[in-house]
Amino acid sequence: MIKVAIVGYGNLGRGVERSLKQNQDMELVGVFTRRAPENVATEGAQAFHMDELNNKRGEIDVCILCGGSATDLPVQTPEVTKYFNTVDSFDTHAKIPEHFSKVDQIAREHQSVSVISTGWDPGLFSLNRLYAQSILPQGGTYTFWGKGVSQGHSDAIRRIAGVVDATQYTIPNNEVIEKLKGGEKLELSTRDKHFRECYVVLEAGADEEAIRAEIVSMPNYFADYDTEVHFISMDELNRDHKAMPHGGTVLHTGTTHEATKQVIEYNLHLDSNPEFTASVLVAYARACVRLAKEKQFGAFTVLDIAPKYLSPIDDATLRKELL
Amino acid sequence: MIKVAIVGYGNLGRGVERSLKQNQDMELVGVFTRRAPENVATEGAQAFHMDELNNKRGEIDVCILCGGSATDLPVQTPEVTKYFNTVDSFDTHAKIPEHFSKVDQIAREHQSVSVISTGWDPGLFSLNRLYAQSILPQGGTYTFWGKGVSQGHSDAIRRIAGVVDATQYTIPNNEVIEKLKGGEKLELSTRDKHFRECYVVLEAGADEEAIRAEIVSMPNYFADYDTEVHFISMDELNRDHKAMPHGGTVLHTGTTHEATKQVIEYNLHLDSNPEFTASVLVAYARACVRLAKEKQFGAFTVLDIAPKYLSPIDDATLRKELL
Repeated sequence: MIKVAIVGYGNLGRGVERSLKQNQDMELVGVFTRRAPENVATEGAQAFHMDELNNKRGEIDVCILCGGSATDLPVQTPEVTKYFNTVDSFDTHAKIPEHFSKVDQIAREHQSVSVISTGWDPGLFSLNRLYAQSILPQGGTYTFWGKGVSQGHSDAIRRIAGVVDATQYTIPNNEVIEKLKGGEKLELSTRDKHFRECYVVLEAGADEEAIRAEIVSMPNYFADYDTEVHFISMDELNRDHKAMPHGGTVLHTGTTHEATKQVIEYNLHLDSNPEFTASVLVAYARACVRLAKEKQFGAFTVLDIAPKYLSPIDDATLRKELL
Repeated sequence: MIKVAIVGYGNLGRGVERSLKQNQDMELVGVFTRRAPENVATEGAQAFHMDELNNKRGEIDVCILCGGSATDLPVQTPEVTKYFNTVDSFDTHAKIPEHFSKVDQIAREHQSVSVISTGWDPGLFSLNRLYAQSILPQGGTYTFWGKGVSQGHSDAIRRIAGVVDATQYTIPNNEVIEKLKGGEKLELSTRDKHFRECYVVLEAGADEEAIRAEIVSMPNYFADYDTEVHFISMDELNRDHKAMPHGGTVLHTGTTHEATKQVIEYNLHLDSNPEFTASVLVAYARACVRLAKEKQFGAFTVLDIAPKYLSPIDDATLRKELL
């Protein structure tokens, strides 16, 4: 049995707890949190204060780090990797090289393994970009996200004065996707690829038109997109817009000879983004422990890990049943 | 530069020749064939008789074996792996374990690397089955092929007395695929998953109804499917049915908690099946040479090889650009 600790218990941590129940070769040692453990309502797991983690050395094969990329993981992954094998979902794309270097050095020094930036993007989408570009070097790769909830964009709306709560959906332009699949070559702007749809609850007396204008013109988040804003009641938001669906597409269109078109398409349709991400983390936690057993110390990403390491099934059976 | 030999020059071998032209880190040493080399019309490559291959030791980093799975590869892959690193597309699913064992033993003895059973199924589809099942263990995987030409089924029709030529299309049941994507759980028979469509040219005076009946009732090939048969002229067949499109879908539907549905979908839409398969072989030829440089001798499948080995781009750049 692979002994797993969950470090951080929000939506992602809860997703990992659920995923572990589906994996017979893994057992959960406990949830480690900065909150008072008695206030953390798990789904059966024992909760410990984060300070207890280092007392559990020898009882844990891998820590799945479920903190956020903005402030938690840049500190936590290097720190925890000193004493444990770790898996994280660090997803600030621009800072991945720096995060990798830092964690790699610590993992080599402390003879541990850390698999960073797993999940679906970065993660499964990165894999698919790599496979597709390696196989069809003469071609273009396009990534689309959604339809799904973007926490970052929802948060940005919530910070506007007069807004009580909000949910933002990122919506891919399916018309463009179909054209690309048909082999059309397109120069696509940010605005061409995705739309944004916002469901917003206002304080009583807030100015709808002013807030709409503030949203659609917000730099980085909305200004470069076509954005629709709907004002609804708190009841409607809670009833219809509190699920966390997501998904997306990696599309690679290439040619092998003259006009011979070849299209590789990878789609995810997810009812729950955090639970799916958690399931990816759990599979890579298995890979992490195997790499550590083979004394392949250091940092890894999904690009570095042979697919078979993710499976609990032995190599001969995989060849027989999946090839 | 990676020096590549093509062994066997049919549709697949020609596809490899074309693919190599798109890969700047590879050069083609030549095409090796059992035919008289002067009768082999390549697209620029030098042609040699197969007997010359062993004289080229030291000049070739990897041989891409482009023979058939029925009779060529079971003999050729073990034999050529004694002297060279090899890549093949052995696709007789039931015999892969035996082929792997045989080639693995020889590769270890002779300190070479052989990547067997690459292509898209087995190959990329196998990869996707493995990733999906490892991430969502509570779920079902469905593979659909087509719309595309099946050479085996076309050949089976051509062997019927009175048939001059034929093209058979395998057609997936898109209605069933949509239901599965919507999360329905279905018990699917062979007949539910695919249809078969046949375009057949008859000898003058052949009995249409008798031949139609012989086709649709042919065991293994057609009896378990709904099959449509169209009789057409040789001109029509040559004009409309001599391309080799193919493709298909690997669909995995799982749940992460109670009724939370998660769907992973991988699609290929291929204008040319042999050229795409060839492109996969070429990417794995690159991986093969890298594994040999690392002295990781033995047989490998796509399940055993880390994605980064397929790319000519260095690891740091891949992390920066694709993660």
